[in-house]
Amino acid sequence: MKKINVVESVLQANDAIARDNRALMSGASLLSINLMSAPGSGKTALLEKTLPALAREYACAVLVGDLQTTRDAERLEELATAVTQINTGRGCHLDAAQVAEGLRGLKLDDIDFLFIENVGNMVCPAAFDLGEHLRVVLLSVPEGDDKVGKYPTLFQLADAILLTKVDLLGVLEYDIGRVRDDLSRINTRAPLIELSSTSGQGINQWLTWLGEQHRARATPVAIGLKDD
Amino acid sequence: MKKINVVESVLQANDAIARDNRALMSGASLLSINLMSAPGSGKTALLEKTLPALAREYACAVLVGDLQTTRDAERLEELATAVTQINTGRGCHLDAAQVAEGLRGLKLDDIDFLFIENVGNMVCPAAFDLGEHLRVVLLSVPEGDDKVGKYPTLFQLADAILLTKVDLLGVLEYDIGRVRDDLSRINTRAPLIELSSTSGQGINQWLTWLGEQHRARATPVAIGLKDD
Repeated sequence: MKKINVVESVLQANDAIARDNRALMSGASLLSINLMSAPGSGKTALLEKTLPALAREYACAVLVGDLQTTRDAERLEELATAVTQINTGRGCHLDAAQVAEGLRGLKLDDIDFLFIENVGNMVCPAAFDLGEHLRVVLLSVPEGDDKVGKYPTLFQLADAILLTKVDLLGVLEYDIGRVRDDLSRINTRAPLIELSSTSGQGINQWLTWLGEQHRARATPVAIGLKDD
Repeated sequence: MKKINVVESVLQANDAIARDNRALMSGASLLSINLMSAPGSGKTALLEKTLPALAREYACAVLVGDLQTTRDAERLEELATAVTQINTGRGCHLDAAQVAEGLRGLKLDDIDFLFIENVGNMVCPAAFDLGEHLRVVLLSVPEGDDKVGKYPTLFQLADAILLTKVDLLGVLEYDIGRVRDDLSRINTRAPLIELSSTSGQGINQWLTWLGEQHRARATPVAIGLKDD
Protein backbone atom coordinates (compact mmCIF):
# COMPACT_ATOMS: atom_id res chain seq x y z
CA MET A 1 0.00 0.00 0.00
CA LYS A 2 2.88 2.32 0.87
CA LYS A 3 4.51 1.44 -2.43
CA ILE A 4 1.34 2.27 -4.36
CA ASN A 5 0.96 5.61 -2.57
CA VAL A 6 4.51 6.59 -3.41
CA VAL A 7 4.05 5.58 -7.05
CA GLU A 8 0.85 7.64 -7.21
CA SER A 9 2.52 10.68 -5.71
CA VAL A 10 5.41 10.35 -8.18
CA LEU A 11 2.88 10.26 -11.02
CA GLN A 12 0.95 13.24 -9.61
CA ALA A 13 4.13 15.31 -9.32
CA ASN A 14 5.03 14.31 -12.88
CA ASP A 15 1.60 15.25 -14.19
CA ALA A 16 1.77 18.70 -12.59
CA ILE A 17 5.07 19.42 -14.34
CA ALA A 18 3.66 17.96 -17.56
CA ARG A 19 0.76 20.44 -17.41
CA ASP A 20 3.26 23.31 -17.07
CA ASN A 21 5.26 21.95 -20.02
CA ARG A 22 2.11 21.74 -22.14
CA ALA A 23 1.01 25.29 -21.26
CA LEU A 24 4.49 26.59 -22.05
CA MET A 25 4.61 24.87 -25.43
CA SER A 26 1.03 25.77 -26.35
CA GLY A 27 1.79 29.40 -25.47
CA ALA A 28 4.69 29.31 -27.90
CA SER A 29 2.45 27.79 -30.60
CA LEU A 30 4.73 24.83 -31.12
CA LEU A 31 3.43 21.30 -31.59
CA SER A 32 5.16 18.65 -29.51
CA ILE A 33 5.12 14.96 -30.30
CA ASN A 34 6.20 12.14 -27.99
CA LEU A 35 7.62 9.26 -30.07
CA MET A 36 7.43 5.92 -28.28
CA SER A 37 8.34 2.36 -29.27
CA ALA A 38 10.44 -0.67 -28.45
CA PRO A 39 14.21 -0.32 -28.86
CA GLY A 40 15.17 -0.43 -32.51
CA SER A 41 11.75 0.26 -34.05
CA GLY A 42 13.22 3.10 -36.06
CA LYS A 43 12.43 6.31 -34.13
CA THR A 44 15.75 7.93 -35.01
CA ALA A 45 15.68 6.68 -38.60
CA LEU A 46 12.20 8.18 -38.99
CA LEU A 47 13.45 11.52 -37.67
CA GLU A 48 16.37 11.36 -40.12
CA LYS A 49 13.75 11.30 -42.90
CA THR A 50 11.25 13.66 -41.28
CA LEU A 51 13.43 16.57 -40.19
CA PRO A 52 14.93 17.47 -43.60
CA ALA A 53 11.47 17.30 -45.21
CA LEU A 54 9.84 19.51 -42.56
CA ALA A 55 12.78 21.95 -42.63
CA ARG A 56 11.49 23.42 -45.91
CA GLU A 57 8.54 24.89 -44.02
CA TYR A 58 9.05 24.49 -40.29
CA ALA A 59 11.69 24.93 -37.58
CA CYS A 60 12.13 21.68 -35.67
CA ALA A 61 13.80 20.74 -32.42
CA VAL A 62 14.39 17.34 -30.84
CA LEU A 63 14.78 16.07 -27.28
CA VAL A 64 16.31 12.58 -27.35
CA GLY A 65 16.01 10.23 -24.39
CA ASP A 66 18.42 7.34 -23.90
CA LEU A 67 19.92 5.53 -20.94
CA GLN A 68 23.45 6.17 -22.09
CA THR A 69 25.42 7.41 -25.12
CA THR A 70 24.66 10.39 -27.34
CA ARG A 71 24.39 8.20 -30.45
CA ASP A 72 20.89 9.25 -31.48
CA ALA A 73 21.51 12.96 -30.91
CA GLU A 74 24.68 12.73 -33.01
CA ARG A 75 22.70 11.22 -35.87
CA LEU A 76 20.22 14.11 -35.76
CA GLU A 77 22.24 17.17 -34.78
CA GLU A 78 22.77 18.48 -38.32
CA LEU A 79 19.10 17.99 -39.23
CA ALA A 80 17.26 20.19 -36.71
CA THR A 81 17.42 23.69 -35.22
CA ALA A 82 18.31 22.18 -31.84
CA VAL A 83 18.94 18.63 -30.64
CA THR A 84 19.31 17.86 -26.92
CA GLN A 85 20.25 14.46 -25.52
CA ILE A 86 18.74 13.51 -22.17
CA ASN A 87 20.53 10.56 -20.56
CA THR A 88 18.30 8.77 -18.06
CA GLY A 89 21.02 6.50 -16.62
CA ARG A 90 18.99 3.50 -15.45
CA GLY A 91 15.67 5.25 -16.01
CA CYS A 92 13.32 3.36 -18.31
CA HIS A 93 11.41 6.41 -19.63
CA LEU A 94 11.59 10.18 -19.89
CA ASP A 95 9.69 12.17 -17.26
CA ALA A 96 8.15 15.62 -17.33
CA ALA A 97 10.94 17.18 -15.21
CA GLN A 98 13.58 16.04 -17.68
CA VAL A 99 11.56 17.50 -20.53
CA ALA A 100 11.08 20.76 -18.58
CA GLU A 101 14.85 21.01 -18.25
CA GLY A 102 15.24 20.32 -21.96
CA LEU A 103 12.69 23.04 -22.77
CA ARG A 104 14.66 25.61 -20.75
CA GLY A 105 17.51 25.25 -23.24
CA LEU A 106 15.31 26.01 -26.27
CA LYS A 107 13.93 29.22 -27.77
CA LEU A 108 10.39 27.92 -27.88
CA ASP A 109 8.93 30.87 -29.82
CA ASP A 110 11.23 30.05 -32.74
CA ILE A 111 10.17 26.38 -32.95
CA ASP A 112 7.22 24.87 -34.86
CA PHE A 113 7.69 21.17 -34.07
CA LEU A 114 9.31 19.61 -31.01
CA PHE A 115 9.89 15.87 -31.32
CA ILE A 116 10.55 14.04 -28.06
CA GLU A 117 12.18 10.68 -28.76
CA ASN A 118 11.44 8.61 -25.67
CA VAL A 119 13.59 5.77 -24.29
CA GLY A 120 13.05 2.56 -26.27
CA ASN A 121 10.50 0.73 -24.12
CA MET A 122 6.92 -0.38 -24.75
CA VAL A 123 5.79 -0.24 -21.11
CA CYS A 124 7.08 2.54 -18.85
CA PRO A 125 6.84 5.60 -21.15
CA ALA A 126 3.08 5.00 -21.39
CA ALA A 127 2.63 5.95 -17.71
CA PHE A 128 4.41 9.32 -17.86
CA ASP A 129 2.80 12.37 -19.44
CA LEU A 130 5.58 14.67 -20.61
CA GLY A 131 3.30 17.54 -21.54
CA GLU A 132 3.36 16.61 -25.22
CA HIS A 133 0.43 17.46 -27.48
CA LEU A 134 0.43 14.20 -29.41
CA ARG A 135 1.67 10.67 -28.87
CA VAL A 136 2.96 8.65 -31.78
CA VAL A 137 3.74 4.96 -31.31
CA LEU A 138 6.01 3.04 -33.67
CA LEU A 139 5.79 -0.71 -34.21
CA SER A 140 8.29 -2.32 -36.56
CA VAL A 141 7.49 -5.29 -38.78
CA PRO A 142 10.35 -7.49 -37.46
CA GLU A 143 8.96 -7.19 -33.90
CA GLY A 144 6.07 -9.38 -34.98
CA ASP A 145 2.35 -8.94 -35.57
CA ASP A 146 1.34 -9.87 -31.99
CA LYS A 147 2.56 -6.77 -30.14
CA VAL A 148 -0.56 -4.57 -30.05
CA GLY A 149 -2.44 -7.10 -27.95
CA LYS A 150 0.56 -7.73 -25.71
CA TYR A 151 1.27 -4.04 -24.96
CA PRO A 152 -2.22 -2.50 -25.16
CA THR A 153 -1.64 0.46 -22.84
CA LEU A 154 0.90 2.02 -25.16
CA PHE A 155 -1.29 1.63 -28.24
CA GLN A 156 -4.44 2.81 -26.46
CA LEU A 157 -3.05 6.28 -25.89
CA ALA A 158 -1.56 6.76 -29.37
CA ASP A 159 -2.76 9.59 -31.62
CA ALA A 160 -1.07 7.89 -34.56
CA ILE A 161 0.49 4.45 -34.97
CA LEU A 162 3.31 3.94 -37.43
CA LEU A 163 4.02 0.46 -38.75
CA THR A 164 7.70 0.86 -39.64
CA LYS A 165 10.16 -1.18 -41.73
CA VAL A 166 7.39 -2.28 -44.12
CA ASP A 167 10.13 -2.89 -46.71
CA LEU A 168 10.65 -6.16 -44.77
CA LEU A 169 7.07 -7.35 -45.40
CA GLY A 170 8.32 -9.29 -48.41
CA VAL A 171 10.99 -11.05 -46.35
CA LEU A 172 9.18 -11.83 -43.09
CA GLU A 173 5.92 -13.59 -42.30
CA TYR A 174 3.65 -10.83 -41.08
CA ASP A 175 -0.13 -10.50 -40.80
CA ILE A 176 -1.16 -6.83 -40.87
CA GLY A 177 -4.74 -8.04 -40.46
CA ARG A 178 -3.82 -9.24 -36.98
CA VAL A 179 -2.50 -5.78 -36.06
CA ARG A 180 -5.66 -4.12 -37.38
CA ASP A 181 -7.81 -6.64 -35.56
CA ASP A 182 -6.06 -5.96 -32.23
CA LEU A 183 -6.30 -2.20 -32.82
CA SER A 184 -10.03 -2.46 -33.58
CA ARG A 185 -10.50 -3.50 -29.94
CA ILE A 186 -8.31 -0.87 -28.24
CA ASN A 187 -7.84 2.21 -30.44
CA THR A 188 -9.99 3.10 -33.43
CA ARG A 189 -9.27 6.84 -33.49
CA ALA A 190 -5.54 6.73 -34.37
CA PRO A 191 -4.59 6.26 -38.02
CA LEU A 192 -2.25 3.35 -38.80
CA ILE A 193 0.39 4.58 -41.23
CA GLU A 194 2.56 1.96 -42.94
CA LEU A 195 6.00 3.30 -43.78
CA SER A 196 9.64 2.55 -44.38
CA SER A 197 12.44 5.01 -43.68
CA THR A 198 14.62 2.88 -45.98
CA SER A 199 12.39 2.79 -49.08
CA GLY A 200 10.53 6.04 -48.34
CA GLN A 201 7.13 4.33 -48.63
CA GLY A 202 4.49 6.07 -46.53
CA ILE A 203 6.73 8.98 -45.52
CA ASN A 204 4.55 11.46 -47.42
CA GLN A 205 1.45 10.21 -45.63
CA TRP A 206 3.25 10.76 -42.31
CA LEU A 207 4.37 14.27 -43.32
CA THR A 208 0.82 15.11 -44.43
CA TRP A 209 -0.52 13.98 -41.06
CA LEU A 210 2.07 16.13 -39.25
CA GLY A 211 1.15 19.17 -41.36
CA GLU A 212 -2.54 18.68 -40.64
CA GLN A 213 -1.89 18.41 -36.92
CA HIS A 214 0.22 21.56 -36.95
CA ARG A 215 -2.42 23.56 -38.82
CA ALA A 216 -5.12 22.32 -36.45
CA ARG A 217 -3.07 23.53 -33.45
CA ALA A 218 -2.21 26.86 -35.06
CA THR A 219 -5.90 27.64 -35.62
CA PRO A 220 -7.27 28.43 -32.13
CA VAL A 221 -10.84 27.46 -32.99
CA ALA A 222 -9.67 24.00 -33.95
CA ILE A 223 -7.81 23.27 -30.74
CA GLY A 224 -9.33 20.31 -29.05
CA LEU A 225 -11.15 19.18 -32.17
CA LYS A 226 -10.13 16.10 -34.08
CA ASP A 227 -8.50 16.88 -37.38
CA ASP A 228 -9.77 14.58 -40.10
CA MET B 1 15.31 10.66 -1.00
CA LYS B 2 12.10 9.04 0.20
CA LYS B 3 11.50 7.70 -3.29
CA ILE B 4 14.98 6.19 -3.43
CA ASN B 5 14.54 4.53 -0.03
CA VAL B 6 11.28 2.94 -1.10
CA VAL B 7 12.83 1.68 -4.35
CA GLU B 8 15.73 0.19 -2.39
CA SER B 9 13.42 -1.56 0.02
CA VAL B 10 11.38 -2.99 -2.87
CA LEU B 11 14.61 -4.30 -4.41
CA GLN B 12 15.78 -5.76 -1.07
CA ALA B 13 12.47 -7.56 -0.59
CA ASN B 14 12.71 -8.87 -4.16
CA ASP B 15 16.29 -10.07 -3.64
CA ALA B 16 15.34 -11.99 -0.49
CA ILE B 17 12.64 -13.88 -2.38
CA ALA B 18 15.04 -14.41 -5.28
CA ARG B 19 17.53 -16.07 -2.91
CA ASP B 20 14.79 -18.44 -1.74
CA ASN B 21 13.85 -19.22 -5.34
CA ARG B 22 17.48 -19.96 -6.19
CA ALA B 23 17.95 -22.23 -3.17
CA LEU B 24 14.74 -24.09 -4.04
CA MET B 25 15.77 -24.63 -7.66
CA SER B 26 19.36 -25.56 -6.82
CA GLY B 27 18.06 -28.07 -4.29
CA ALA B 28 15.99 -29.67 -7.05
CA SER B 29 19.06 -29.76 -9.36
CA LEU B 30 17.31 -27.86 -12.10
CA LEU B 31 18.99 -25.14 -14.10
CA SER B 32 16.98 -21.93 -14.51
CA ILE B 33 17.58 -19.37 -17.22
CA ASN B 34 16.15 -15.86 -17.36
CA LEU B 35 15.66 -14.82 -21.00
CA MET B 36 15.63 -11.05 -21.47
CA SER B 37 15.37 -8.80 -24.53
CA ALA B 38 13.42 -6.04 -26.23
CA PRO B 39 9.91 -6.92 -27.43
CA GLY B 40 10.05 -9.01 -30.58
CA SER B 41 13.69 -10.12 -30.38
CA GLY B 42 12.61 -13.73 -30.72
CA LYS B 43 12.52 -15.18 -27.19
CA THR B 44 9.45 -17.32 -27.88
CA ALA B 45 10.67 -18.34 -31.36
CA LEU B 46 13.95 -19.46 -29.79
CA LEU B 47 12.09 -21.56 -27.23
CA GLU B 48 10.03 -23.10 -30.04
CA LYS B 49 13.34 -24.38 -31.47
CA THR B 50 15.02 -25.15 -28.16
CA LEU B 51 12.37 -27.10 -26.28
CA PRO B 52 11.85 -29.93 -28.82
CA ALA B 53 15.63 -30.37 -29.17
CA LEU B 54 16.21 -30.51 -25.40
CA ALA B 55 13.21 -32.81 -24.91
CA ARG B 56 15.25 -35.77 -26.23
CA GLU B 57 17.40 -35.60 -23.09
CA TYR B 58 15.84 -33.21 -20.59
CA ALA B 59 12.50 -32.28 -19.01
CA CYS B 60 11.84 -28.57 -19.53
CA ALA B 61 9.39 -26.11 -18.03
CA VAL B 62 8.69 -22.49 -18.94
CA LEU B 63 7.40 -19.46 -17.04
CA VAL B 64 6.29 -16.79 -19.53
CA GLY B 65 5.94 -13.15 -18.51
CA ASP B 66 3.76 -10.74 -20.47
CA LEU B 67 1.64 -7.71 -19.64
CA GLN B 68 -1.46 -9.24 -21.18
CA THR B 69 -2.56 -12.16 -23.37
CA THR B 70 -1.47 -15.79 -23.16
CA ARG B 71 -0.13 -15.76 -26.73
CA ASP B 72 3.41 -16.86 -25.91
CA ALA B 73 2.32 -19.61 -23.53
CA GLU B 74 -0.08 -20.94 -26.17
CA ARG B 75 2.79 -21.16 -28.67
CA LEU B 76 4.84 -23.21 -26.22
CA GLU B 77 2.35 -25.34 -24.31
CA GLU B 78 2.75 -28.48 -26.43
CA LEU B 79 6.55 -28.26 -26.36
CA ALA B 80 7.38 -28.45 -22.64
CA THR B 81 6.50 -30.47 -19.56
CA ALA B 82 4.80 -27.39 -18.07
CA VAL B 83 4.17 -23.86 -19.34
CA THR B 84 2.83 -21.14 -17.03
CA GLN B 85 1.84 -17.65 -18.18
CA ILE B 86 2.40 -14.82 -15.71
CA ASN B 87 0.51 -11.65 -16.67
CA THR B 88 2.06 -8.56 -15.12
CA GLY B 89 -0.73 -6.13 -16.09
CA ARG B 90 1.14 -2.83 -16.32
CA GLY B 91 4.31 -4.27 -14.79
CA CYS B 92 7.39 -3.83 -16.96
CA HIS B 93 9.30 -6.88 -15.68
CA LEU B 94 8.86 -10.13 -13.79
CA ASP B 95 9.74 -10.07 -10.10
CA ALA B 96 10.89 -12.79 -7.73
CA ALA B 97 7.50 -13.11 -6.00
CA GLN B 98 5.79 -13.84 -9.32
CA VAL B 99 8.40 -16.48 -10.09
CA ALA B 100 7.99 -17.96 -6.60
CA GLU B 101 4.30 -18.35 -7.28
CA GLY B 102 5.06 -19.93 -10.65
CA LEU B 103 7.47 -22.37 -8.98
CA ARG B 104 4.78 -23.51 -6.52
CA GLY B 105 2.82 -24.88 -9.48
CA LEU B 106 5.71 -27.04 -10.73
CA LYS B 107 7.15 -30.40 -9.67
CA LEU B 108 10.69 -29.05 -9.46
CA ASP B 109 12.36 -32.43 -8.87
CA ASP B 110 11.09 -33.63 -12.24
CA ILE B 111 12.49 -30.68 -14.20
CA ASP B 112 15.99 -30.25 -15.67
CA PHE B 113 15.66 -26.82 -17.30
CA LEU B 114 13.37 -23.96 -16.31
CA PHE B 115 13.25 -21.14 -18.85
CA ILE B 116 11.85 -17.86 -17.58
CA GLU B 117 10.81 -15.66 -20.49
CA ASN B 118 10.80 -12.14 -19.10
CA VAL B 119 8.62 -9.23 -20.26
CA GLY B 120 10.00 -7.68 -23.47
CA ASN B 121 11.99 -4.73 -22.12
CA MET B 122 15.68 -3.84 -22.21
CA VAL B 123 15.69 -1.78 -19.01
CA CYS B 124 13.54 -2.88 -16.07
CA PRO B 125 14.16 -6.66 -16.02
CA ALA B 126 17.87 -5.97 -15.46
CA ALA B 127 17.16 -4.61 -11.96
CA PHE B 128 15.19 -7.60 -10.66
CA ASP B 129 16.91 -10.84 -9.67
CA LEU B 130 14.38 -13.64 -10.07
CA GLY B 131 16.56 -16.30 -8.49
CA GLU B 132 17.63 -17.65 -11.87
CA HIS B 133 21.00 -19.36 -12.27
CA LEU B 134 21.87 -17.81 -15.62
CA ARG B 135 20.83 -14.74 -17.57
CA VAL B 136 20.64 -14.86 -21.34
CA VAL B 137 20.11 -11.66 -23.30
CA LEU B 138 18.81 -11.66 -26.86
CA LEU B 139 19.51 -8.88 -29.36
CA SER B 140 17.95 -9.16 -32.80
CA VAL B 141 19.62 -7.92 -35.97
CA PRO B 142 16.73 -5.62 -37.01
CA GLU B 143 16.99 -3.71 -33.72
CA GLY B 144 20.26 -2.25 -34.95
CA ASP B 145 23.94 -2.61 -34.09
CA ASP B 146 23.94 0.27 -31.57
CA LYS B 147 21.95 -1.32 -28.73
CA VAL B 148 24.71 -2.77 -26.52
CA GLY B 149 26.12 0.67 -25.80
CA LYS B 150 22.67 2.18 -25.29
CA TYR B 151 21.44 -0.47 -22.83
CA PRO B 152 24.68 -1.51 -21.12
CA THR B 153 23.20 -2.65 -17.79
CA LEU B 154 21.31 -5.50 -19.43
CA PHE B 155 24.31 -6.72 -21.40
CA GLN B 156 26.70 -6.38 -18.44
CA LEU B 157 24.89 -9.01 -16.43
CA ALA B 158 24.42 -11.52 -19.27
CA ASP B 159 25.96 -14.99 -19.02
CA ALA B 160 25.37 -15.46 -22.75
CA ILE B 161 24.31 -13.03 -25.47
CA LEU B 162 22.37 -14.29 -28.46
CA LEU B 163 22.40 -12.26 -31.67
CA THR B 164 19.11 -13.45 -33.18
CA LYS B 165 17.55 -13.21 -36.66
CA VAL B 166 20.99 -13.40 -38.32
CA ASP B 167 19.19 -14.64 -41.46
CA LEU B 168 18.43 -10.91 -41.97
CA LEU B 169 22.13 -9.96 -42.11
CA GLY B 170 21.99 -10.20 -45.90
CA VAL B 171 19.00 -7.85 -46.07
CA LEU B 172 19.86 -5.18 -43.49
CA GLU B 173 22.90 -3.01 -42.96
CA TYR B 174 24.46 -4.33 -39.79
CA ASP B 175 27.95 -4.09 -38.31
CA ILE B 176 28.61 -7.03 -35.97
CA GLY B 177 32.02 -5.47 -35.32
CA ARG B 178 30.25 -2.59 -33.57
CA VAL B 179 28.40 -5.03 -31.29
CA ARG B 180 31.65 -6.85 -30.45
CA ASP B 181 33.40 -3.53 -29.87
CA ASP B 182 30.71 -2.36 -27.41
CA LEU B 183 30.77 -5.75 -25.66
CA SER B 184 34.56 -5.61 -25.32
CA ARG B 185 34.05 -2.66 -22.97
CA ILE B 186 31.25 -4.02 -20.81
CA ASN B 187 31.13 -7.83 -20.88
CA THR B 188 33.96 -10.07 -22.04
CA ARG B 189 32.97 -13.22 -20.15
CA ALA B 190 29.67 -13.97 -21.97
CA PRO B 191 29.86 -15.77 -25.32
CA LEU B 192 28.13 -14.05 -28.25
CA ILE B 193 26.20 -16.71 -30.18
CA GLU B 194 24.87 -15.74 -33.61
CA LEU B 195 21.71 -17.63 -34.47
CA SER B 196 18.47 -17.71 -36.42
CA SER B 197 15.38 -19.58 -35.28
CA THR B 198 14.16 -19.37 -38.89
CA SER B 199 17.19 -20.84 -40.69
CA GLY B 200 18.46 -22.88 -37.74
CA GLN B 201 21.93 -21.34 -37.96
CA GLY B 202 23.67 -21.30 -34.58
CA ILE B 203 21.00 -23.32 -32.80
CA ASN B 204 23.39 -26.24 -32.22
CA GLN B 205 25.95 -23.90 -30.66
CA TRP B 206 23.22 -22.61 -28.31
CA LEU B 207 22.13 -26.16 -27.42
CA THR B 208 25.75 -27.14 -26.77
CA TRP B 209 26.16 -24.17 -24.44
CA LEU B 210 22.97 -25.13 -22.56
CA GLY B 211 24.17 -28.73 -22.19
CA GLU B 212 27.54 -27.58 -20.85
CA GLN B 213 25.86 -25.30 -18.33
CA HIS B 214 23.58 -28.10 -17.15
CA ARG B 215 26.46 -30.53 -16.71
CA ALA B 216 28.47 -27.91 -14.81
CA ARG B 217 25.56 -27.37 -12.40
CA ALA B 218 24.92 -31.08 -11.98
CA THR B 219 28.54 -31.70 -10.97
CA PRO B 220 28.87 -30.19 -7.49
CA VAL B 221 32.63 -29.63 -7.75
CA ALA B 222 32.13 -27.48 -10.82
CA ILE B 223 29.54 -25.17 -9.31
CA GLY B 224 30.84 -21.65 -9.34
CA LEU B 225 33.56 -22.43 -11.87
CA LYS B 226 33.36 -21.10 -15.39
CA ASP B 227 32.55 -23.78 -17.90
CA ASP B 228 34.67 -23.45 -21.03
